Amino acid sequence: MPIVSHKGKAMPESPIRKLVPFAEKAVKEGKHIYHLNIGQPDIKTPIEAMNAVRDHKLDILAYSHSAGFESFRKKLAGYYAKHDITISSDDILITTGGSEALIFTMGSITDPGDEIIVPEPFYANYYSFSTQSTVKVVPVISKLETGFALPPIPDFEKLITPKTKAILICNPGNPTGYLYSKEEIKQLSKLAIKYDLFLISDEVYREFVYDSSEHYSILQERDLEDHAIVVDSVSKRYSMCGARIGCLVSKNKSVIETAMKFAQARLSPPTLAQIASEAALEAPDSYYKETVEKYKLRRDTLVSGLREIPGVKVALPKGAFYCIAELPVEDADHFAEWLLNKFDLNKQTVMLAPASGFYSSPNEGKNQVRIAYVLNRRDLKKSIEILRQGLEKYNSQ
Amino acid sequence: MPIVSHKGKAMPESPIRKLVPFAEKAVKEGKHIYHLNIGQPDIKTPIEAMNAVRDHKLDILAYSHSAGFESFRKKLAGYYAKHDITISSDDILITTGGSEALIFTMGSITDPGDEIIVPEPFYANYYSFSTQSTVKVVPVISKLETGFALPPIPDFEKLITPKTKAILICNPGNPTGYLYSKEEIKQLSKLAIKYDLFLISDEVYREFVYDSSEHYSILQERDLEDHAIVVDSVSKRYSMCGARIGCLVSKNKSVIETAMKFAQARLSPPTLAQIASEAALEAPDSYYKETVEKYKLRRDTLVSGLREIPGVKVALPKGAFYCIAELPVEDADHFAEWLLNKFDLNKQTVMLAPASGFYSSPNEGKNQVRIAYVLNRRDLKKSIEILRQGLEKYNSQ
Ligand SMILES: Cc1ncc(COP(=O)(O)O)c(C=O)c1O
Ligand SMILES: Cc1ncc(COP(=O)(O)O)c(C=O)c1O
Repeated sequence: MPIVSHKGKAMPESPIRKLVPFAEKAVKEGKHIYHLNIGQPDIKTPIEAMNAVRDHKLDILAYSHSAGFESFRKKLAGYYAKHDITISSDDILITTGGSEALIFTMGSITDPGDEIIVPEPFYANYYSFSTQSTVKVVPVISKLETGFALPPIPDFEKLITPKTKAILICNPGNPTGYLYSKEEIKQLSKLAIKYDLFLISDEVYREFVYDSSEHYSILQERDLEDHAIVVDSVSKRYSMCGARIGCLVSKNKSVIETAMKFAQARLSPPTLAQIASEAALEAPDSYYKETVEKYKLRRDTLVSGLREIPGVKVALPKGAFYCIAELPVEDADHFAEWLLNKFDLNKQTVMLAPASGFYSSPNEGKNQVRIAYVLNRRDLKKSIEILRQGLEKYNSQ
Repeated sequence: MPIVSHKGKAMPESPIRKLVPFAEKAVKEGKHIYHLNIGQPDIKTPIEAMNAVRDHKLDILAYSHSAGFESFRKKLAGYYAKHDITISSDDILITTGGSEALIFTMGSITDPGDEIIVPEPFYANYYSFSTQSTVKVVPVISKLETGFALPPIPDFEKLITPKTKAILICNPGNPTGYLYSKEEIKQLSKLAIKYDLFLISDEVYREFVYDSSEHYSILQERDLEDHAIVVDSVSKRYSMCGARIGCLVSKNKSVIETAMKFAQARLSPPTLAQIASEAALEAPDSYYKETVEKYKLRRDTLVSGLREIPGVKVALPKGAFYCIAELPVEDADHFAEWLLNKFDLNKQTVMLAPASGFYSSPNEGKNQVRIAYVLNRRDLKKSIEILRQGLEKYNSQ
């Protein structure tokens, strides 16, 4: 029998994959599971987007331009202008989700064996996409104690080799919820320029910033023009994860030209989803405002609830809708499994994402979990209570 | 300035890319262009698919399962059963177009430097996807004289090395229009089993077979179960190219498990397009019948017209909606450019796809073009007349 590739074998499983059979068993046993493990928002998609699809007048569902509808790219340039980002529609390539923007970016700037430095913990699929491109992720550790702030620049410098092609950040961060300050972005920019590296910023959570913080994009750094590549997506912004529309933005012409070759090979991003995404740009500002307000309240509920549980540590997330919590357990993988398999509170339990999946350094984050606050506050409160009692019981055994 | 990767530089441009500026100039000069160069059908998408999208009741456009809707995969298994292909929904992975099925296949079975043998001329993007995976395409030449029939098996055997992982065929073929016989598929199966290779068959044109020919899928070969990987798509079948839905089908469990890791990394295929594609399966059999009948008439119009032009050679395509024609010119790239740039017949001209883009062997196919018969017969006739007079003028200069 012919066998799969080394690369195929090395492709990581999704961090919660091992838990799925236990979750299925729990459901079969009649338990209700609160899903704190996923990033699928419960917010409604803008009605403008949904109606545009309902009202479509197409006879033939044809390929679009490989770079996406021009009308959509022009409107997107307008969207960025509102965020103080000056780009033209030619600097934008519409992709099949932010995921494809990441794949195109890695394909365009790396060869097998090249390295990308990524602050850790990081979005688990960065590891998958780099395995797919046979690129090595070089982690630089960030710590819960500092709220997962940017690691000191010398920590990056120590890791730079002739094979280093880029630094990849997520801002605001999944799974950390950390929002990089303008000052931190400037430090990273200087570093990228000094060592002639690309700086890739995954800004799919751009709108999700809380309190009085402001998001500062790498595209606002003038000096960085040739180095900056932004990955973006409608998935979270408009609660349109199933659309599969994102984009790659860069003022570096050879990056766009190269990514365009990957785009032409796969012919076209999805047409119906582009219709929806273009229409979503017509959503009123109140749509974002209300969404962000809702997430802020959820975050506050979650974080204050978690902090009341003895032994739990959590940094206040400034953005996105995740946090990393340190639990008073040795092995969060085992605890997460136990919650599904052995525990319930009145037939209810919670599903957590063990943080080990967000680290590539072995043994890091063993006692941490990622919690997504995509549930309403009542459910969040219940989840926290389940977690509290679960921890108590687990640790008393 | 940081620079793009070797891989990025090696990614081929689309075969007609060089012609695009000339086409744009021709349009500016008021010329009408008949597009014989593209595979975007003019057939209407089934109304069942379009209505399913219009009638959607979604509030939240959520991620689907990474393998695609289970309901859709189950119905697809039913579709295959009608084609004498016995598979279960677990053998199917829904992908973002046949394109993504090809990318997942290469990722799952090859490592950098591995080789895939492909009968030439071949769909140009096979070359792009293998460059993306840093895999080497090893061409085995097929000839217009034999109608692009399967090259002799010893021709394949000569090319097999320890790095060979698979043989990739397109059946029926883009750009050749050739339909492999059951006998040829059996020969390839034996070869794949003998050398323990995967046999990948791109069957996105399965329905498009003419005269009394029948399509024979590699999935009908029982002995081949562990070796067979089929790439499929709704793009051409239902004239839904913009949906971006395809699938990867294999009874080899480790192939599906591995491809699933790539699928999980990119999260989900497009949700709206899955709704449309699932509904398209409800289209009556008459939909295919009428479509195929239409293409058959177009093929006959095209081929008989081309054969009347002095010096033009063409094999009768048995499937898909393309043919390769040999023209009485030395350099079809130059001629195609000239047609756009220097020629018109009453302000009309044609755009051809030079066949050089479908060969990886240097200097093959220099005097050939690929012609897609996706136009109505009146337009096809006009196109042939333009081509006839164009050739005459070009050769009298
Ligand atoms: C940080 C980050 N980047 C990228 C993505 C990819 O999202 P999509 O492909 O849906 O745009 C996600 C999805 O969860 C994410 O969290
Ligand atoms: C032979 C062949 N395979 C695969 C594809 C990819 O099509 P899609 O990604 O739209 O399914 C095409 C499109 O033209 C094709 O001709």
